[in-house]
Amino acid sequence: MPMEIERKFLVSGDQWRQGAHGTLYRQGYLCTDPERTVRVRLAGDRGTLTIKGKTEGISRAEFEYPIPAGEAAQLLDRLCLRPLIEKRRYRVEYGGRIWEVDEFFGDNAGLVLAEVELETESAQVELPSWVFREVSDDPRYFNASLVKKPFCTW
Amino acid sequence: MPMEIERKFLVSGDQWRQGAHGTLYRQGYLCTDPERTVRVRLAGDRGTLTIKGKTEGISRAEFEYPIPAGEAAQLLDRLCLRPLIEKRRYRVEYGGRIWEVDEFFGDNAGLVLAEVELETESAQVELPSWVFREVSDDPRYFNASLVKKPFCTW
Repeated sequence: MPMEIERKFLVSGDQWRQGAHGTLYRQGYLCTDPERTVRVRLAGDRGTLTIKGKTEGISRAEFEYPIPAGEAAQLLDRLCLRPLIEKRRYRVEYGGRIWEVDEFFGDNAGLVLAEVELETESAQVELPSWVFREVSDDPRYFNASLVKKPFCTW
Repeated sequence: MPMEIERKFLVSGDQWRQGAHGTLYRQGYLCTDPERTVRVRLAGDRGTLTIKGKTEGISRAEFEYPIPAGEAAQLLDRLCLRPLIEKRRYRVEYGGRIWEVDEFFGDNAGLVLAEVELETESAQVELPSWVFREVSDDPRYFNASLVKKPFCTW
């Protein structure tokens, strides 16, 4: 089964921004059940539909399919649960890996998270100075959780 | 938005079986919320992922994407809600239209439903003698409902 292995951290400061390019992401959920989330994403002009299974440790099953951008927009506008997640994603190279830094807007404004995908759960990761706390195992920071309980309500 | 317009009927007798070819369908749901169902289907060796919106009259939004059969099987085996829907679907030509007759198995054994897709809500349909009651507007007969409340529990 295709798996996603990922560690997630809170971000402090702005040092990560240097030279980083951001892409606007709009994403929403058809299902936020932790056992089986279904996500619609529009990243720039690329639409995707992603199904994820239950998180076990820092791993979860992940099935991802490209869909037409126009249909992703319709699904977001008409069918997805509210609120949508709006964020800008920056790809930052550090220590030989690509870190994805998400700066949230809307109901989750103020939240900045950094994620790094790994090949195994025990893979070594060099941590940049601008991450300060790991939240990989804190379900509040799952994007699907941020729909049900946005950062502005914390 | 892509729409599905469909009428659904209960079936009596076996007359519809004459010459009809059946394909085994296994399908399951990641979400059975009537506002946004997410279905995984394995029809023979074809996998699909289908998102449907709320039914209004006999119409609903429908977004359908082909997915690899092996991934459809994994989604059905590992992630979909229980029970799965198992049925054999027969395509029957009648009155210039294709009727899809679903003979259910498993927890829904005993149920036989016929569906016909229409181009408009008011399109004329010639009814075959082997359908006896329309259930288009009865949510109990939605496949997503048959997961939550299978026919064997009625």
